[in-house]
Amino acid sequence: MKKLINDPGTVVADALRGMAAAHPGTLKIDHANRLVISIDAPRPGKVAVISGGGSGHEPLHSGFVGPGMLDVAVAGEVFTSPTPDQVLAALQAADSGAGALLIVKNYTGDVMNFEMAGELAAAEGIDVASVIVADDVAVTDSLYTAGRRGVGGTVVVEKVAGAAAQAGCTLAEVTALAQRTADAARSMGLALTSCTVPAAGRPTFDLADDEIELGIGIHGEPGRSREQIAPVRELAARLVTPILEDLDFTDAPVIVLCNGMGGTPLIELYGLYAEVSDLLAAQGVQIARNLVGNYVTSLEMAGASVTLVKADDEMLEYWDAPVSTTGLQW
Amino acid sequence: MKKLINDPGTVVADALRGMAAAHPGTLKIDHANRLVISIDAPRPGKVAVISGGGSGHEPLHSGFVGPGMLDVAVAGEVFTSPTPDQVLAALQAADSGAGALLIVKNYTGDVMNFEMAGELAAAEGIDVASVIVADDVAVTDSLYTAGRRGVGGTVVVEKVAGAAAQAGCTLAEVTALAQRTADAARSMGLALTSCTVPAAGRPTFDLADDEIELGIGIHGEPGRSREQIAPVRELAARLVTPILEDLDFTDAPVIVLCNGMGGTPLIELYGLYAEVSDLLAAQGVQIARNLVGNYVTSLEMAGASVTLVKADDEMLEYWDAPVSTTGLQW
Repeated sequence: MKKLINDPGTVVADALRGMAAAHPGTLKIDHANRLVISIDAPRPGKVAVISGGGSGHEPLHSGFVGPGMLDVAVAGEVFTSPTPDQVLAALQAADSGAGALLIVKNYTGDVMNFEMAGELAAAEGIDVASVIVADDVAVTDSLYTAGRRGVGGTVVVEKVAGAAAQAGCTLAEVTALAQRTADAARSMGLALTSCTVPAAGRPTFDLADDEIELGIGIHGEPGRSREQIAPVRELAARLVTPILEDLDFTDAPVIVLCNGMGGTPLIELYGLYAEVSDLLAAQGVQIARNLVGNYVTSLEMAGASVTLVKADDEMLEYWDAPVSTTGLQW
Repeated sequence: MKKLINDPGTVVADALRGMAAAHPGTLKIDHANRLVISIDAPRPGKVAVISGGGSGHEPLHSGFVGPGMLDVAVAGEVFTSPTPDQVLAALQAADSGAGALLIVKNYTGDVMNFEMAGELAAAEGIDVASVIVADDVAVTDSLYTAGRRGVGGTVVVEKVAGAAAQAGCTLAEVTALAQRTADAARSMGLALTSCTVPAAGRPTFDLADDEIELGIGIHGEPGRSREQIAPVRELAARLVTPILEDLDFTDAPVIVLCNGMGGTPLIELYGLYAEVSDLLAAQGVQIARNLVGNYVTSLEMAGASVTLVKADDEMLEYWDAPVSTTGLQW
């Protein structure tokens, strides 16, 4: 294993030290609880929007903390859910009395720990709601999941919910919008290579020189099938087709995320987007907004995922609203 | 070779199709000449700022096109200089009569072709200046260079020059500032893995499982030495020390770029930045601004580089000025 790390046990702590050093004017870091907190949180009267999960998916979630998106991101160990205590600390740090929304990717550990934290916070008088993102069409149930996994759609849910909270919506309003956005999201990914979890020290799985894993999860958990590498035009179709089979995307504008898994260069992601864009046009899907780049990664895995979110006017309005984070800014 | 491509010969064209599809409201693509042009170029009275070079370093240069930075980026084949004709077309597309600055990384082919284009444009009455960036302290002369190579410092030169042009400075003023910024930049990089040029089909070089290449170039050209992998704390010192030995950075505020080579995840880049930040503080270097992420890449190479730019008030003012590109936005 070759990585730019000091020790497998200090990867997350070292990265948080780096974030603290790089962004002192915009982020506060609670090193004990591994929280990345927006400098302006808690803000009186504003609903707090909190997310988190295992580390190794950066910029998700820490890169999405800031005005217009998350108030706090909770960092677990690499590919490991944060503890209920960490999430409770996030709720305590961010709540201003207006309540808090937890955005949770659908993994068994995350769902359990965020739920437990919500109950502990509720016992302290904090008004807590949660939305579970389960947008991956690749598999039902998996190594770490009952039901579908939460992947790229999370970025859109966090952006839209964060903007709604920023605009002064109530907890009920932010929650309803976040739920609607999560329900409208579908994703599918593929890997060209595995990643190596620092604590494991070796690749999670092996792929031959001409193989891809279609339907890969963001922790290297198995997908739908092993297939031969093919031109990106064909691979794009294998990502887009199951998404379109799962939900009708022809009757509303769509937000498209063409997301790198960490080790795939931008020049390839734009090549993929060209094909995705052509395929969607041919299917009568109208792309209203797009993002191309690394947003929900799996350490240094080579590969990509495509996310479609069927948007309504309110989602588009909050998608377009200003955001000021290290990972998204406009 | 496993890549998300259709064919090694279409990688650049496919990526430009993707950029055209993704950013129709902000970028114009000249597919014939492989130019990425800001939607607002040419702008009457504004000095045009143009850069370019071989592809495979994205977001450099195409990701830095937009208000406040570049007017045009010229894309060569992967790791191959664009032709004089391409650069001439860029000059013709961007010049509004106020002249144009060419920002050129110091590689023999780039320098020659940009110079020839400048002469052709001058013959058409376009006022052209150029600044060569040669910030890599690793080696003097190399496989593709007479003198030092141009690497991460290019981002800072493009940002500062682009902001000065945006503010209405004359060609002489923009050029002087860009030259001063280039002169104040020093960089050093390392690789954990090679990259694979699509047309070559196999890795440019081989590194053993416990080896790094210190002083790597952004095309996989050899660096200073092969060394054993070590904790990032030590590797950070091997990047920072030769930079500080080359120029005194203790008597002015410094812009620091902690740059990924493409295949290294953000969580590791922040870990590296934590160490760089500590080392610079211990050496009495005052970090005024920083960037952590993938800015000047080498396809999917795993590794990182550190760039320091000794800044004056004017550089900081233009660094802080608003920028609206796909790769940098504030």
